[in-house]
Amino acid sequence: MPTFTLTDVARDLWVDHFAIGTEVFGAPRKVPWSVTKKTLRGGRRDGVDLIQVDNGALSFSVLPTRGMGIWKGRFRGDTLGWESPVRDGPVHPSFVNLMNGGGIGWLDGFDELLVRCGLENNGAPYEVKTIKPDGSEGHATFGLHGKIANIPASFVAVRIETDPEESITIEGHVDEARLFSGQVRMATAITTTPGSNRVSVRDRFLNLGDSPAEMQVLYHWNFGAPHLEEGARLLAPIRTIVPRDARAGEGLDRYDVYEAPTPGFAEQAYFFELHASPRDDRTLAMLRNRAGDKAVVLRFDGRRLPAFTLWKNTGGSRSGYVTGLEPATNYPNPRPFEQARGRVVTLPPDGTYEVETILEVLNDEESVATVEAEIRDLQSRGIPTIHRKPVEPFAPEG
Amino acid sequence: MPTFTLTDVARDLWVDHFAIGTEVFGAPRKVPWSVTKKTLRGGRRDGVDLIQVDNGALSFSVLPTRGMGIWKGRFRGDTLGWESPVRDGPVHPSFVNLMNGGGIGWLDGFDELLVRCGLENNGAPYEVKTIKPDGSEGHATFGLHGKIANIPASFVAVRIETDPEESITIEGHVDEARLFSGQVRMATAITTTPGSNRVSVRDRFLNLGDSPAEMQVLYHWNFGAPHLEEGARLLAPIRTIVPRDARAGEGLDRYDVYEAPTPGFAEQAYFFELHASPRDDRTLAMLRNRAGDKAVVLRFDGRRLPAFTLWKNTGGSRSGYVTGLEPATNYPNPRPFEQARGRVVTLPPDGTYEVETILEVLNDEESVATVEAEIRDLQSRGIPTIHRKPVEPFAPEG
Amino acid sequence: MPTFTLTDVARDLWVDHFAIGTEVFGAPRKVPWSVTKKTLRGGRRDGVDLIQVDNGALSFSVLPTRGMGIWKGRFRGDTLGWESPVRDGPVHPSFVNLMNGGGIGWLDGFDELLVRCGLENNGAPYEVKTIKPDGSEGHATFGLHGKIANIPASFVAVRIETDPEESITIEGHVDEARLFSGQVRMATAITTTPGSNRVSVRDRFLNLGDSPAEMQVLYHWNFGAPHLEEGARLLAPIRTIVPRDARAGEGLDRYDVYEAPTPGFAEQAYFFELHASPRDDRTLAMLRNRAGDKAVVLRFDGRRLPAFTLWKNTGGSRSGYVTGLEPATNYPNPRPFEQARGRVVTLPPDGTYEVETILEVLNDEESVATVEAEIRDLQSRGIPTIHRKPVEPFAPEG
Repeated sequence: MPTFTLTDVARDLWVDHFAIGTEVFGAPRKVPWSVTKKTLRGGRRDGVDLIQVDNGALSFSVLPTRGMGIWKGRFRGDTLGWESPVRDGPVHPSFVNLMNGGGIGWLDGFDELLVRCGLENNGAPYEVKTIKPDGSEGHATFGLHGKIANIPASFVAVRIETDPEESITIEGHVDEARLFSGQVRMATAITTTPGSNRVSVRDRFLNLGDSPAEMQVLYHWNFGAPHLEEGARLLAPIRTIVPRDARAGEGLDRYDVYEAPTPGFAEQAYFFELHASPRDDRTLAMLRNRAGDKAVVLRFDGRRLPAFTLWKNTGGSRSGYVTGLEPATNYPNPRPFEQARGRVVTLPPDGTYEVETILEVLNDEESVATVEAEIRDLQSRGIPTIHRKPVEPFAPEG
Repeated sequence: MPTFTLTDVARDLWVDHFAIGTEVFGAPRKVPWSVTKKTLRGGRRDGVDLIQVDNGALSFSVLPTRGMGIWKGRFRGDTLGWESPVRDGPVHPSFVNLMNGGGIGWLDGFDELLVRCGLENNGAPYEVKTIKPDGSEGHATFGLHGKIANIPASFVAVRIETDPEESITIEGHVDEARLFSGQVRMATAITTTPGSNRVSVRDRFLNLGDSPAEMQVLYHWNFGAPHLEEGARLLAPIRTIVPRDARAGEGLDRYDVYEAPTPGFAEQAYFFELHASPRDDRTLAMLRNRAGDKAVVLRFDGRRLPAFTLWKNTGGSRSGYVTGLEPATNYPNPRPFEQARGRVVTLPPDGTYEVETILEVLNDEESVATVEAEIRDLQSRGIPTIHRKPVEPFAPEG
Repeated sequence: MPTFTLTDVARDLWVDHFAIGTEVFGAPRKVPWSVTKKTLRGGRRDGVDLIQVDNGALSFSVLPTRGMGIWKGRFRGDTLGWESPVRDGPVHPSFVNLMNGGGIGWLDGFDELLVRCGLENNGAPYEVKTIKPDGSEGHATFGLHGKIANIPASFVAVRIETDPEESITIEGHVDEARLFSGQVRMATAITTTPGSNRVSVRDRFLNLGDSPAEMQVLYHWNFGAPHLEEGARLLAPIRTIVPRDARAGEGLDRYDVYEAPTPGFAEQAYFFELHASPRDDRTLAMLRNRAGDKAVVLRFDGRRLPAFTLWKNTGGSRSGYVTGLEPATNYPNPRPFEQARGRVVTLPPDGTYEVETILEVLNDEESVATVEAEIRDLQSRGIPTIHRKPVEPFAPEG
């Protein structure tokens, strides 16, 4: 099981180009796969490292320079991800000023299939007012969705396993650490198996410091066509649903159904509690197309990622027709709100928090129906509690 | 008419070095010209792409990394541009924090002959206060002169025409686009003809989104010696002149005459309406030296760029002795002010707005006198209305 | 005495790799030394130029990309510097947003042995509220410790002297200059002698503009193990000591003694006036280990750097166990406070301000005892005035 290190700042190691594939093992493999790495040049992507993984059926690209996010993917001809108004990405963090526009500069780089939000904060930007010793005021802005997506990985490696089963893993470390602040390392392992329809994202958050560290993480998985379309639906085993605000409340009766691209559509977000398997705490959510022959499924631990947010942003097709399925430690409210409601993770020194999200891509009716049945089964654990307005402790009551 | 693409992120294409010149066409040409491209290294210019165009008489450099601005120029021995206190430019956008100092970080990179200001906003920085759902306040700063000058081009090409006439064009696309915001592409064509004294900057602004997009653009053309000097003058066919503020009011009687470099001089800005040709709406403004044997002329469409600003900043020679001639869609007031007075362009989906500014460089008395006559002729369409104080709708009445 | 220019943006010169050593002079030298330069790749260090100097006994690295700071050092097996929570440095300025968190983004890159703070401001971040012509408010934040550490040098050279004595000097120019602002060039010469235990940092601040320029500079020298440890002590010839705030007041009785690493320890800062030699105005401060057989000594001009700050931050060993010895033109209060008390340097046009700080590293009892005696001798010029609370004009009275 060879491991190829592509970046390791501790050893002053960085690899410009890298390529590996099935053939390295000499013998013919069941499924041809490949991993390549290059550095993009030009425009706002100048200097972005890109790792492309193709397992023979499912392909995706990982962005070490953007916090080990997953840029785009493809499964047997179907696109995974969305068409962002950011057309020239992936965008190098040096072109993203998180403080722009009152803390929404994060949007300047937002075009990924998976972007993690955190770790100091995620969700809406917020401002903290302080009074300085000399009596003057200060205003600290905490930007939309935090910093982790714009921090380059300090360590990147490709690990190939052959025993008992072939697998391809992209590993990376992203540190959100500085003096007078939390010091949390995210060690990710993004794994797929040749020929499979799955990629798993396993993140281990480690407190590198000597004091307790607080963190939040939200997995902002984003999908457009062909999985998102008019009549596409969200399916999940719902325990509770709460509209984020009055705007979301307007769409509550059709929270699970998607509109066609609608220029000028104002986003709607819903907060959920989901039922999970009593056996292993695992739960899932599925976005399926209208015909029910294509779907993307997210599988995750309902205990470690207890807050699930659905983001419906079915604007015009060129302005970002997209939906976000977002398993998280918390709801994307300003952190002080979440903190007061106990939805911030505290890591003791050397403490870890491990979470896994699995993306599964389906492209036939039978497999979609099977997952639907799986969701129905979990749903049978209880009927959903439906709140028609934002309610505590989920969202500020408007 | 070959076109050489130097950057195209859509095709993952980027060219490190490029050079082309007269000789490529085999036969001897009337005037030797050349175009070269390189990437600068070191200091704050590290990573900046620079395209140098020499038409045989007029030379200038284009900055794809800085929004396709024009850095410096030269015409038959005369410098075009100014000596900025930014001595180590061109400055890579990653070293420009637009949010510095309450939104004036833009100045950290300001050293160009032509820098475009926009597109979401231009002019003075302003702050918008918002109240969040949880009752907290937010403050969003919109920085001085907007973002466009610090966005790298996603597409860059060199186009050489030979028929009917030789011409050299640098093309570039700069997108100011993200989710929840306008999505405007600026497609520029910067063209010159071998041996000529002209360069034209033709910009086409295209709304890539599904909803109407608003934009502003101001062409901040900046000149120092030898065109700016004590006794140099501005000439333009003036319909209206308004001082921006009380400080500009102090200099109103000599608005068109320049002082010698004066350390500590506080800037003065004047807002104009100009007369334009009834035939084609075109108008012009000229900065000529004291002797009247050197001048720079800007020619532009008075209908599409109806707001002309003169910026007089005749500080000390080492602190920025410069004047700006600034044709624009609007005056450089905070955008909310301009918006309320109808000076923001709205582009429908797929809508475009095309503007051209031509820089013409003169270096003999006769050609200067000819343009003076041209301006006098337009001036004969009406005598100027002179406001001695800031007045609506041009500027906040102080 | 050859000089090797590594960066000179004025001549569009930049050297990718460079190495020189004893052998270039043909004859065998007393002590083998070397200077190498490379550009780091990967992670947050991508693009950082690093110059490594080894004088045969003392080695250190200089960061042209980070304002000519000194990253790390080593003397005969002892580390110089500290273990920052920033584990993946040196951090490229494009990954440091000085405006983050209300102006404390500087901490994202803070891991150096020597980082200069200034020049427009240093010390705590502060906010200035302004009222705009249109009646709206603006808030300008001036970030912690200013910008100089995140500005790449526009000129870098290596100078080797052989007569009368061998010496190695790294030269660099860092300009903090833009329109409507001070225009100050810092020209540094960082010098060591083969085999010596010293490095001198000589900075010349030059006003490049036509108007007077104001500046502040603080030399933030930072030390951890083995010089900092439980029972380590600060020694300096103290004229006055003032705790910065109530928290520092708590530790006043043991201001000169260090604790063991203490997770959760809240920083303490003390402001000093020191006695200086009446002959040459020079003074010094020493950090020695408990046993008194290792020490670092800073020697500097007590007239040009009249404000000395001791920063005690003996937090957990992984969260930044560090002390700062900080000779400066001022105390690290917000600039308006310092300005009102006359602790801002004003440079006339072409005016200069030259300061030197020498780091001396000791590794035996005898040399430590000798410097202790030297400090005692200066202390005999007067007994310390000890303030138990923050007092004017040193700090805001709390």
